[in-house]
Amino acid sequence: MSINSNVHDAGSTPGAEAATVPAPNMADVGTVACVGAGTIGGGWAAYFLARGFRVKIWDPSPDAGDKLSALIDAAWPALTKLGLAETADKDNFTVHTDLAEAVDGVGFIQESAPEKLELKRQLLADIDKVTAPGVVIASSTSGYSMTEMATEAADPSRLVVGHPFNPPYLIPLVEVVGGERTAPEAVKWASAFYDSIGKSVITMDHEVPGFIANRLQEALWREALHMIDNGEATVEQIDRSITDGPGLRWPIHGPMTTFHLAGGQGGMSHMLDHFGPSLKSPWTRLDAPELTSQLRDDVVDGVDDAEPRPVDELIAERDEVIIAIRNVIASVKGQS
Amino acid sequence: MSINSNVHDAGSTPGAEAATVPAPNMADVGTVACVGAGTIGGGWAAYFLARGFRVKIWDPSPDAGDKLSALIDAAWPALTKLGLAETADKDNFTVHTDLAEAVDGVGFIQESAPEKLELKRQLLADIDKVTAPGVVIASSTSGYSMTEMATEAADPSRLVVGHPFNPPYLIPLVEVVGGERTAPEAVKWASAFYDSIGKSVITMDHEVPGFIANRLQEALWREALHMIDNGEATVEQIDRSITDGPGLRWPIHGPMTTFHLAGGQGGMSHMLDHFGPSLKSPWTRLDAPELTSQLRDDVVDGVDDAEPRPVDELIAERDEVIIAIRNVIASVKGQS
Repeated sequence: MSINSNVHDAGSTPGAEAATVPAPNMADVGTVACVGAGTIGGGWAAYFLARGFRVKIWDPSPDAGDKLSALIDAAWPALTKLGLAETADKDNFTVHTDLAEAVDGVGFIQESAPEKLELKRQLLADIDKVTAPGVVIASSTSGYSMTEMATEAADPSRLVVGHPFNPPYLIPLVEVVGGERTAPEAVKWASAFYDSIGKSVITMDHEVPGFIANRLQEALWREALHMIDNGEATVEQIDRSITDGPGLRWPIHGPMTTFHLAGGQGGMSHMLDHFGPSLKSPWTRLDAPELTSQLRDDVVDGVDDAEPRPVDELIAERDEVIIAIRNVIASVKGQS
Repeated sequence: MSINSNVHDAGSTPGAEAATVPAPNMADVGTVACVGAGTIGGGWAAYFLARGFRVKIWDPSPDAGDKLSALIDAAWPALTKLGLAETADKDNFTVHTDLAEAVDGVGFIQESAPEKLELKRQLLADIDKVTAPGVVIASSTSGYSMTEMATEAADPSRLVVGHPFNPPYLIPLVEVVGGERTAPEAVKWASAFYDSIGKSVITMDHEVPGFIANRLQEALWREALHMIDNGEATVEQIDRSITDGPGLRWPIHGPMTTFHLAGGQGGMSHMLDHFGPSLKSPWTRLDAPELTSQLRDDVVDGVDDAEPRPVDELIAERDEVIIAIRNVIASVKGQS
């Protein structure tokens, strides 16, 4: 994906501020800053190092450097197996307690402070204040919208959410979304930047609580808590029902493609037309939406767009991956 | 797991019939019957063949034999990679249109007819009528309880649900549960039988619509449909949010262990004590249960029971599996 064709589009979101973005050219970003070096921030630092960046870390705790070194050392073998950039150097980082010093000269900032709204608000404002104009600042928040976090910042136009999954050095997904006052260019730049460093980027048009993956995961988690609360299943049964069941399919086919295959050769249209009434069944505590012809068509067309290959090919791919996963897990468990 | 220590326990479920179970000794089950040879029934047949059984299939469609042969041929390479029993022979099956002939001399029956309640009721009654006493009859149903399916059968005590996941020859999970009139011995026997042939068995104490895995999967699916219905996400985004996100963790750690690790060194107790309030957040349309101290303790104790190993060891295992899965998927996608 080329950034140049995207980042200079004029912003058109109502309420977007006069932007200090466009940001640096992607190729000029040699150094990034990680603000906060806990599990998520440290995981980001490890990932940026593996991708060949110099990393400047800000963290106020006295033992931040030691903890970070331990985290990077633990993550490095994994990162090596996935493939390092030529210039990758796991020691190419510095730890700072002065924020202005930490962000000086960097081309991108990833904030991963604890999930406390007041703290995030103040910290994002502080980062904005000491960071050079045009540098995009992303927050790892899993719970807050940028609209609610950006209230104290002088320049909210460059503040975006860049939500990773734990561990950020292994899970490719990053969900990118701006707040009401974020410039569209900042969202585009961040998306292109993450894309350029090998992340799987989902750019959202507007803010939805929980973004996408966490909403889906949270629905499953809450149903599981209800089942435990009602004595319907144990913790062990819930975990195994996923690991030995549908969980084996989800790394290769998401929930939509999974149900596409459940429709056999007829695919998703067969599935919805024949099993649509099951959405009325009490198979979870979450009521389904009405399966209108519009929703039916949106889902069927969406699957055709997302996964145009023939069902037979998808089945062969799924089976090959499931076998490999089962053999890998048997091998890993055999070692322990 | 030894069946002998379990199957002769006296039945104590109120309403259980005078049982014709206990069933044949496990070691004496050389032949099984598959009633219905569609995707699920044919998948079961392939699995039983790979485990060394002779398989008798009943299916009324004129092309059942051809379709079944094609399915078994397609599944056999996968089954071979997972490891065949010494006596496995992919041609060791016969197809019958007479039900009494199909079940004659078999030690176990797996029914996988279409999901239509009246059809299942009549078919289970018909199978029961022509099957030797003491042979357990399991239904692959994903949607009905055995209480509602067993209404027409002369001997409901031997009728159990044995719910597989597609494809049954690759996904280990089988959920086993009886109806109100099922003998506890039949549930135990079926569980032990599936266990003895390498399945991952979850035996449920009582009937819950959707069993366990489908309830969890259905909650996620319905949240996804709502998101599409509301223009919050596309089909492609939903699928990728899982395949490139939490889906990479689920084959090794189920949802409970995943959140256990999200609590860091403090594990699930830290997670619930610090992030419990997030259950009130609008991160899915499904309301969570009240996090009472009882539920909190049930979940924490359940995780301790299910996964007593230290968090560091679980993290190392997770990372190793995620890397392997990512490399497998890259390799499979590289071929296509």
